[in-house]
Amino acid sequence: MRVVIVGAVAGGASAAARARRLDESAEITLIERGEAPSFANCGLPYFVGGVIESRNKLLVTPTQRLIDRYKLDVRTRTEALAIDRRAKTVTVSKLDTDEVETLSYDKLILSPGASPLRPPFPGADLPTVFTLRDLKDADQLHAAAAGAKRAVIIGGGFIGLEMTENLVHRGLDVSVVELAPQILPPWDAEMVAPVADHLRSRGVKLHLGDAAEAIEEVDEGGVRVKLRSGESLEADFVVLSIGVRPENKLAVDAGLEIGPRGGIVVNRNMQTSDPDVYAVGDAVQVNHFIDGSPVQIPLGGPANRQGRIAADHVFGRDSEYRGTQGTAVVGVFDMTATMTGFSEKALAAAGIPHLKAYVHPGNHAGYYPGAQGMTLKLLFAPDTGRILGAEAVGGAGVDKRIDVLAVAIQAGMTVYDLEEMELAYAPQYGSAKDPVNMAGFVASGILRGDQPVVHSATLVGTAPGGAGEGAGYLPPAGPDRFLLDVRTPEEFHQGHIFGAKNIPIDELRGRLDELPRDKPITAYCQVGMRGYLATRVLLQNGFDAANLSGGYKTYQQHASATSAS
Amino acid sequence: MRVVIVGAVAGGASAAARARRLDESAEITLIERGEAPSFANCGLPYFVGGVIESRNKLLVTPTQRLIDRYKLDVRTRTEALAIDRRAKTVTVSKLDTDEVETLSYDKLILSPGASPLRPPFPGADLPTVFTLRDLKDADQLHAAAAGAKRAVIIGGGFIGLEMTENLVHRGLDVSVVELAPQILPPWDAEMVAPVADHLRSRGVKLHLGDAAEAIEEVDEGGVRVKLRSGESLEADFVVLSIGVRPENKLAVDAGLEIGPRGGIVVNRNMQTSDPDVYAVGDAVQVNHFIDGSPVQIPLGGPANRQGRIAADHVFGRDSEYRGTQGTAVVGVFDMTATMTGFSEKALAAAGIPHLKAYVHPGNHAGYYPGAQGMTLKLLFAPDTGRILGAEAVGGAGVDKRIDVLAVAIQAGMTVYDLEEMELAYAPQYGSAKDPVNMAGFVASGILRGDQPVVHSATLVGTAPGGAGEGAGYLPPAGPDRFLLDVRTPEEFHQGHIFGAKNIPIDELRGRLDELPRDKPITAYCQVGMRGYLATRVLLQNGFDAANLSGGYKTYQQHASATSAS
Repeated sequence: MRVVIVGAVAGGASAAARARRLDESAEITLIERGEAPSFANCGLPYFVGGVIESRNKLLVTPTQRLIDRYKLDVRTRTEALAIDRRAKTVTVSKLDTDEVETLSYDKLILSPGASPLRPPFPGADLPTVFTLRDLKDADQLHAAAAGAKRAVIIGGGFIGLEMTENLVHRGLDVSVVELAPQILPPWDAEMVAPVADHLRSRGVKLHLGDAAEAIEEVDEGGVRVKLRSGESLEADFVVLSIGVRPENKLAVDAGLEIGPRGGIVVNRNMQTSDPDVYAVGDAVQVNHFIDGSPVQIPLGGPANRQGRIAADHVFGRDSEYRGTQGTAVVGVFDMTATMTGFSEKALAAAGIPHLKAYVHPGNHAGYYPGAQGMTLKLLFAPDTGRILGAEAVGGAGVDKRIDVLAVAIQAGMTVYDLEEMELAYAPQYGSAKDPVNMAGFVASGILRGDQPVVHSATLVGTAPGGAGEGAGYLPPAGPDRFLLDVRTPEEFHQGHIFGAKNIPIDELRGRLDELPRDKPITAYCQVGMRGYLATRVLLQNGFDAANLSGGYKTYQQHASATSAS
Repeated sequence: MRVVIVGAVAGGASAAARARRLDESAEITLIERGEAPSFANCGLPYFVGGVIESRNKLLVTPTQRLIDRYKLDVRTRTEALAIDRRAKTVTVSKLDTDEVETLSYDKLILSPGASPLRPPFPGADLPTVFTLRDLKDADQLHAAAAGAKRAVIIGGGFIGLEMTENLVHRGLDVSVVELAPQILPPWDAEMVAPVADHLRSRGVKLHLGDAAEAIEEVDEGGVRVKLRSGESLEADFVVLSIGVRPENKLAVDAGLEIGPRGGIVVNRNMQTSDPDVYAVGDAVQVNHFIDGSPVQIPLGGPANRQGRIAADHVFGRDSEYRGTQGTAVVGVFDMTATMTGFSEKALAAAGIPHLKAYVHPGNHAGYYPGAQGMTLKLLFAPDTGRILGAEAVGGAGVDKRIDVLAVAIQAGMTVYDLEEMELAYAPQYGSAKDPVNMAGFVASGILRGDQPVVHSATLVGTAPGGAGEGAGYLPPAGPDRFLLDVRTPEEFHQGHIFGAKNIPIDELRGRLDELPRDKPITAYCQVGMRGYLATRVLLQNGFDAANLSGGYKTYQQHASATSAS
């Protein structure tokens, strides 16, 4: 069996190692355009930032080890030029000598990855406008940061924010330009508003809902980035991180089926439209785990598993890829944003019915020192309660809760199952009622009708740049709605929703005659707990009442997201 | 509806709050023997240790808040003396005045908890021999630790080790006496051997496989603890933490059904044998989630959920408790031991067929600074691969992996599902192949026959105090087994299994003629990865080969557990 693998990072390297374990006698050739196979691409921003000090650490499995340990024919600095599917050959070229060779394969595995988008505006190809994909890019950025004072990051997604953190760590002034009215576009806007605030508190300038239109060199050195808004940002260099595009040229030229967003189409065994050609990793179109829709989600974990599955199938095993659920995490200074499954806006865009719940628990028992807060948003099906997605943002422990919810989604679990989760509890690790349990209680309460809810999105206007409707605040209280703040007078005076009346929860039962019986009452507290109890008291006393999900804290996040850019 | 709840900590407090949310008009009376309801019992050791500085922090929901917010009739310092099930009354006595009162109920919820065992040996009731259950105990221990130099902890379970950490934190010399030949008896011995080493490195003296037989006062003040081994330990005070017993007197006297281990028998709605009497928390016998067997597992999370379920059922809802799966975690200085489901010894005792796998991954990518190691043991069914239990011990991130596995157990998932888990990955949070994926790969490899394994328990003799067979090492290599160490010569010379031959993995294919074809070969490396590849190479070259699961590291843990006491 002759196996040729094109691309030696995550998916390709996994496929090669798996192939060797399955068959000692196979001839396995690994083609890699870069200087090193199997490097730590997710570590590149941290090498640029000096957090990872030694470049050698990025070389996870050096070439010689792949040769000695896995008996692979490793060709680095070698590019695959063309596939002849009829002849079952790949033509490759050595980049250093231009020597061309034709390799025969019985099975071909493509793991070409995805390349950073470089928009066509003037100056996007200047030498001080960098992207970050491989070791060479990281070396260049590492050098560019030395002695530099200012950098502009275009694109506020994963890599943009990781680069932001790392350049700040190197002492640079950093500005981020993001087309969307929020950072981290995969998340819902209100969830990442606190991350934006956190970035600003670290001195990062955010230009949201704005775009670069041109970059020009300035006489004193460095560049000037001209924005659509009219603003100009000067910097020593620019990082372009507006997204990636599947590297599909080889596949396109070979006539393999390609999806609408450029991803190579594969079946559940990772076979392309040619059963002797497999494709894995960021270059392929996968099906979303939840609804089976075709998606393009570049992630390291799935790439590794896909490589393994392709190798399995090459050697006659019926391993199947289940689809990608979009579990992701990004660290931004001391904060973490993480998600799994669909976001609310993705559900809305896909027309999938959904409900949501917000909770703001601590990562562990509040009475144990050092508890850190988080916001957890749960999205679920109105009929069955099936979990459709979750987002968590905060300090320590948010990745734990999203991992738990990622498994629950894999298992097809419902919000009722979350109520019953038995998770590890001691006061420094969690709570007897874990954040995941709490989210389950709230969501189940909504479904059972125990807790009608109103959402802050109803009170706060549409986010600018969103559906195009006017930004800002709608009048939250008025002829159609009575707003009841059940927090303490101290909390109320520190900030409340315009028009709300304050009756602390502990006085509520004695002051029911102050409330209207002719219009709906929206009760709220700080995070939704006292508001829930207030709602129960009111409902049982004949009022038309609902709780503001996630309380004033969620409201503030929405307000911040709406006024952010 | 008149609801009387006896016991106002975890289960009782949850039941009361839930009952009020469900019914504004119910008369809810909460009886508590101690001074405060709803205190943080899991925080008591950390208050004694000064980690939690303010005693007020332990009062999670003060009495006045329960009255104001939940409209409860709260009676602290009040003891329930007897239940008259015919008349549906509870007789209670005010501890401060001896005033006796009879309370009528429609539904009664018992949440009496469990009391620390006090063994009958001489001196166990001396005033300087403490247990730790409530605020009063914590106050006494807090005071006793002031100015004290030495303490003896009898019992090396959860509370024993939490008290150990906290008394060391207060500056005391601490000795721990544990009857079992290991600390933390719910875990398998080899898993907690590193925790024992860690305790010793902090100066804690461990007396394993030993027992206190008497405590006597000494003239200079303090006490002397006499051990079965003949040793004597002097100390200023003693903490007894050898376990708890369900507080079942009220239930027994009322003629309610009691299980063989003293737990109050309840159905899935938490009803006792009298449908108008419910029981929740540490006092009840529950069914194990995995096999339905009756068990007594005192845990805070389940107590809270049971209280909620009982209240639900009182008010006509059909909430059901699914059983307890025994998810637990304990912190010991910078280490964490955590588990879910059955341990190996519990499976063996129950006669449940099982297989196991060990992995030793880092909590996050090794190339990102600060990665911490862990040992993860997975127990699974030989036929279906269903996950039966898991234990994880190490530094950061072990609680996350056990929570993930706890959900997988709840969902009835298999080791094959673990291969496919899509968990949050960025280099500071995890690995593209998460520890949970790795455990799934190894376990699935065992089931698919890709990776025959030998376990260290086969090479290391039976642990002392275990099945009663002789302790110590069996000859690991010999006429019946060839031991192959595939690590580097440097690793080999730093320590290896007696009789092993060293052929580094990268040389293995060229030196196959040095290996025997007439007897089984056990290959091993440091953690099991290179040993797995070696096993694949050997099997495909016609050798009878198996991998030592978890490698030399697991072997060392077994050896340490065997020689520990």
